[in-house]
Amino acid sequence: MTDVDVVVVGAALAGVTAARVLRDAGRTVRVLEARDRVAGRTYGGTLANGVPVELGGQWIGPSQTAVRALIDELGLPTFPTYDTGDALTRYRGTVTRYGDATFGLSGAAAGEVGRMQAELEALAGTVSLSAPWTTPEAAELDRRTLDEWLRGATTDTEALAFWGAVVPAVFSAEPAEMSLLHFLFYIKSGGLIDMLVGVTGGAQDSRVVGGTHRIAEEVAADLGAAVVTLNAPVYAIAQDENEVRVSTPERTVSAGHVIVAIPPTLAGRLVYRPALPAQRDGLTQQIPMGSVIKVQIAYPTPFWRTSGLSGFAFDLDGALSVTLDNSPPDGSCGVLVGFFEGAHARTAARWSAEERRAVAVATLTDLFGPQAAAPTDYLEQDWTAEEFTRGCYGGRLGAGAWTQYGPALAEPVGRIHWAGAETADIWNGYMDGAVRSGRRAAAEILDRLSS
Amino acid sequence: MTDVDVVVVGAALAGVTAARVLRDAGRTVRVLEARDRVAGRTYGGTLANGVPVELGGQWIGPSQTAVRALIDELGLPTFPTYDTGDALTRYRGTVTRYGDATFGLSGAAAGEVGRMQAELEALAGTVSLSAPWTTPEAAELDRRTLDEWLRGATTDTEALAFWGAVVPAVFSAEPAEMSLLHFLFYIKSGGLIDMLVGVTGGAQDSRVVGGTHRIAEEVAADLGAAVVTLNAPVYAIAQDENEVRVSTPERTVSAGHVIVAIPPTLAGRLVYRPALPAQRDGLTQQIPMGSVIKVQIAYPTPFWRTSGLSGFAFDLDGALSVTLDNSPPDGSCGVLVGFFEGAHARTAARWSAEERRAVAVATLTDLFGPQAAAPTDYLEQDWTAEEFTRGCYGGRLGAGAWTQYGPALAEPVGRIHWAGAETADIWNGYMDGAVRSGRRAAAEILDRLSS
Repeated sequence: MTDVDVVVVGAALAGVTAARVLRDAGRTVRVLEARDRVAGRTYGGTLANGVPVELGGQWIGPSQTAVRALIDELGLPTFPTYDTGDALTRYRGTVTRYGDATFGLSGAAAGEVGRMQAELEALAGTVSLSAPWTTPEAAELDRRTLDEWLRGATTDTEALAFWGAVVPAVFSAEPAEMSLLHFLFYIKSGGLIDMLVGVTGGAQDSRVVGGTHRIAEEVAADLGAAVVTLNAPVYAIAQDENEVRVSTPERTVSAGHVIVAIPPTLAGRLVYRPALPAQRDGLTQQIPMGSVIKVQIAYPTPFWRTSGLSGFAFDLDGALSVTLDNSPPDGSCGVLVGFFEGAHARTAARWSAEERRAVAVATLTDLFGPQAAAPTDYLEQDWTAEEFTRGCYGGRLGAGAWTQYGPALAEPVGRIHWAGAETADIWNGYMDGAVRSGRRAAAEILDRLSS
Repeated sequence: MTDVDVVVVGAALAGVTAARVLRDAGRTVRVLEARDRVAGRTYGGTLANGVPVELGGQWIGPSQTAVRALIDELGLPTFPTYDTGDALTRYRGTVTRYGDATFGLSGAAAGEVGRMQAELEALAGTVSLSAPWTTPEAAELDRRTLDEWLRGATTDTEALAFWGAVVPAVFSAEPAEMSLLHFLFYIKSGGLIDMLVGVTGGAQDSRVVGGTHRIAEEVAADLGAAVVTLNAPVYAIAQDENEVRVSTPERTVSAGHVIVAIPPTLAGRLVYRPALPAQRDGLTQQIPMGSVIKVQIAYPTPFWRTSGLSGFAFDLDGALSVTLDNSPPDGSCGVLVGFFEGAHARTAARWSAEERRAVAVATLTDLFGPQAAAPTDYLEQDWTAEEFTRGCYGGRLGAGAWTQYGPALAEPVGRIHWAGAETADIWNGYMDGAVRSGRRAAAEILDRLSS
């Protein structure tokens, strides 16, 4: 007899969702979490004035029905992201204010961006979400990087600069760092580009009161402390014909199955007995995490609102490329959230926190005016420095990886099942995808147990 | 006081070379090796008739002066690779025999290949070997894959097919899987393309009697069993202001410094306390190993020699893309060594050994005639399945990686120094580079100890 039916590695959204499904189906479960907290890439911070802010993933959109249903089940209140007024884009020193769909670009650049978006979305329409490697022309789409496609599609430097900010805003990685197939898969997985980039109606539509980390926290609390063990970094998984044994430095838990619900690059670091098949190991060698440093800059009031600004901005010139209004629901103070993403994050990681703050405040001052120069608080989170995440928002596949290693992403290896946002076919890389992946992995095991 | 002055992780060429330098300088050393053997990516096999063959790295060239000097010091005899007679190339079903520099290509294709080679080598001339990220135009060379460059440089499908075999022959990876900058760095590191591909005078010039694994074996024997511990897989490295502690499941060894002499992707799997800087961790996430399955097919005699063939062949049509004469020095039997490389290796890894053998024998029969259809022996080694290597010949950097993560490849992190063929600036990826890297890491530590 084993200790439990199923061990889950990782108490973030995918892991606790899977554990909850299994428990509700009458199975015994143990969740082992490396950190001293649950919730993984969702994480709550608090400003000096007591206002909670999200240091990790924070927005949900209306088509994210899996995470939405979980939030509703848990009874967590949500509120709309502030999205009233004009947005800003800076390009070559000029800040453009806009209220239409141009993203503040010149007519020529906006036209090019629109044409390219339509072409990319038409291509995305051909992609298989459940098995991207079976997409028609998969080999040709996979041997090219998104960067090659973008450079080949236009010579408009303003349009290219815009893509150079939008792509890291979605992937925390540069267009050269992913295959065209990966980009197409990902945008289709989330409902195409406007959905991924949009606020109202899009992926940034709403927030959870108190922060999205409350979702995993509530599920973990419901599972109970006897099920979820913190400070338990799994380093080894051994399986044989009878059971699987999952080891931390302090314990080994036996089970019939294990769900590994951590990013693939971290899953690749565990010791497996027997060793994993080459295709699975090769996959984990080439699905690096994105790079992002997320900063929160607080003010006495959301002063930009009184100027008719939404707080949404793209800076095509500087390192803090995207900004949104992240004020609390009652607007009792003003918070702007900004992102150093992709190449900017790798550069900014070499600066001190003071330097990052200075760059962020200078950027916001250029965009939103002199009131932005006097913040009351600054809070930052560098996800690449987090040992048990090693990057956000998620893992990406470079040229050649999907067609040669894709099947290994979610295919079980004996008693080992894989979950996590990277393994989802719908809303891959998002909280919604994490929830779906946890349900899928739990269902795989329930199927096997009932057959 | 610590147990030893220096711990070395990995008893392959880089590790044992470093240990030897340190010992000769009067320092105490302990080498911890995960496998039950030394020598890493060099590994000896034996045919049923008792003839030794190399299952891993096997050739040395005259400009590989570091490994050559070590071989000479150890007194290991060498012999020239058989390189007399004509070579073969198959393309679209036609086998062409040649004795010139055309590689058996049509005049048009040979011309295109020559022109492209000259252009690539001119570009390579601009690359900094010690710091590729400082190369003029580094960002532009790094955002492009080699595949993009090749497709942009010619429309000659025969020339592209040739590059499609040559690149995996050198990298065990596809042109899309590395940046143009990585390709240029690598070919310059080894002395340009003719040197990398050549037999006599090139990287495949000579062999060590009994096999190249004897090099690391002899050095390890000289170090002694008290220094080199087998079956000791390191899983954790902790450092503080006083010492570094290196742990296997059975022991922890303390030292002033540690040299991690394993491939970067495997080095990234260890647990570090404190956790590694983000740039170093990010590097290890994006330097996947190449894929190769090396096969040895034996015959009663090297029958191809009597037909005036050297045994060297490129098959641009099939999966076993490169073949060489690998017979023993006395020619007492015939051995052809063939390679499934890059995409072909990933496909062939899903076949059974019988299927791989059948494909290999069929290819050799098409190339060398009916006598090839009746081998007396077949021996294969899939390096991607090796838990403590996870691919050969070495790690490569995809688009964007050199310019953003390059400095982390060899830069020490506190008491941790990095060695291995991937960290060499001369003959990167080769045995010679491994030896150089071991010497460099040992010198780093001796410098610190004497200052």
